[in-house]
Amino acid sequence: MPKLFTKIRDLRNYIKTAKQDGGYTVGFVPTMGYLHDGHRRLIKSSKAHNDITVVSIYVNPLQFAEGEDYERYPRDLERDISLCEEELVDVVFAPSDEEMYPERPLLRISIEGLTEVLEGQFRPGHFSGVCTVVLKLFNIVNPNRAYFGEKDYQQLKVVERLVKDLSIPTEIVAVPTVRDEEGLALSSRNLYLSPEERRSALSLYRSFLLAETLIKNGNTEASLLKKAIEDFILKHPKVRKVDYVEITDPELRPVQQVKEGDRILLAVWVGNTRLIDNWRIGDAKVRGHTQGRGF
Amino acid sequence: MPKLFTKIRDLRNYIKTAKQDGGYTVGFVPTMGYLHDGHRRLIKSSKAHNDITVVSIYVNPLQFAEGEDYERYPRDLERDISLCEEELVDVVFAPSDEEMYPERPLLRISIEGLTEVLEGQFRPGHFSGVCTVVLKLFNIVNPNRAYFGEKDYQQLKVVERLVKDLSIPTEIVAVPTVRDEEGLALSSRNLYLSPEERRSALSLYRSFLLAETLIKNGNTEASLLKKAIEDFILKHPKVRKVDYVEITDPELRPVQQVKEGDRILLAVWVGNTRLIDNWRIGDAKVRGHTQGRGF
Repeated sequence: MPKLFTKIRDLRNYIKTAKQDGGYTVGFVPTMGYLHDGHRRLIKSSKAHNDITVVSIYVNPLQFAEGEDYERYPRDLERDISLCEEELVDVVFAPSDEEMYPERPLLRISIEGLTEVLEGQFRPGHFSGVCTVVLKLFNIVNPNRAYFGEKDYQQLKVVERLVKDLSIPTEIVAVPTVRDEEGLALSSRNLYLSPEERRSALSLYRSFLLAETLIKNGNTEASLLKKAIEDFILKHPKVRKVDYVEITDPELRPVQQVKEGDRILLAVWVGNTRLIDNWRIGDAKVRGHTQGRGF
Repeated sequence: MPKLFTKIRDLRNYIKTAKQDGGYTVGFVPTMGYLHDGHRRLIKSSKAHNDITVVSIYVNPLQFAEGEDYERYPRDLERDISLCEEELVDVVFAPSDEEMYPERPLLRISIEGLTEVLEGQFRPGHFSGVCTVVLKLFNIVNPNRAYFGEKDYQQLKVVERLVKDLSIPTEIVAVPTVRDEEGLALSSRNLYLSPEERRSALSLYRSFLLAETLIKNGNTEASLLKKAIEDFILKHPKVRKVDYVEITDPELRPVQQVKEGDRILLAVWVGNTRLIDNWRIGDAKVRGHTQGRGF
């Protein structure tokens, strides 16, 4: 069983002893719980490079905008602890709201060019909430390394910049998106999807493959590719709205002409569920063999 | 001689060894250099409660707004190191701009109700720059305690809230303002004042004593007191402008009726020098004896 902490003070004492007396390195996997194989991948990465792995499970109210799915976001601590046990996680930190925010935080954080675009445009305050909770958790866990999924690519870039601008002594490790057999990026929010919605949601992944094919055939103009992606996705019956399709360089700066290493990022409403996904251009070639088995 | 560090990495290694191997506590005094007796007071407080005292000397460009005195801000590292030596400071950290900001930081920080009022209104971006450098320095020095002067009262409140909202494991210690024999609050910027300007600058301190007298005589209405303070200061020949006079509770919330423990805060241009000062209402009574010797 992992050690379960719910109090900041207790976790701090544990970490301090582990680092100072044990000389242990600490790997940290911050999550909102309802863990899936994407989280397993993060945990395995942490386990491979650190003496102790800490997983936090906390649905951070600050990063939900007004009217979003904070209330219905899935929660199952018992199940999450079991998964952590299977993965030999050392510590689970599952604080209450009262413990994390005894007072409403007054701090707001933004990062020029990173927090106001894409997700930031559609989810006001989202990245301020993310930055606040990440800084707070880092100050509690004091990790040597922290693991973030590429699934939330913009979040990864925001956290990387936060760490750089503030000289935070933690290495940020990016972990590739995990997809199911049909290509759907794993997300706790996939739970919301009906079987029919799930079929429509596969259009996100398939639009990336379509883009790769177009690029391979010489279509490298971003505007053309974005339109093709959007049109393709919108053809699917349960797709209600495309919030955005964007193609950027690795640092989220929009590009005109697409090249290998650029990113396609998108957010799509399937029924009442908002899904995000992203894709590194060139990955279809690299992963040719996995596509061979229907991926 | 204090150990002098100019590189983040070197200081980090030193602190890590001191804390982990030595079990030492670290007190931190962040400064912009050109040290005076106000800084001495901060250093003495740190020396009294920590095994190791670190003084940083860095004129942080981020906290100067466009057109302010960043270029002409006084700098004299050799003199500062001598003062630190006298005070038996263990470590001086004096990084270059290149070391602190190899890239222009993209991060912006604000704190609701604290960073946009008073100084924040007149110095756009100032507190974002302060918060950024404080977080950065804390991440480098990892202090058990950090010492801030009440002279910059709003800054103190901003840093206290930053630490609270982000669960930073550092205790913020407030140290009273040091005044010269005539009551002028010590500041590196006093250097800018001509003898005549200096005489006019004494009106700031004297306006606080005036306010205390008015309050003692039953005038507790903030608007009346603020007007009396402003009128008094503006009568002095070299006073060019009053940016603000405000009376707040200890958490910088404006008050209508003044009571003991509230704060008078003001910013005044004397010639081309902008001075700030503040006063805890009730302190004249407590310090009755020091007034007795012309204070």
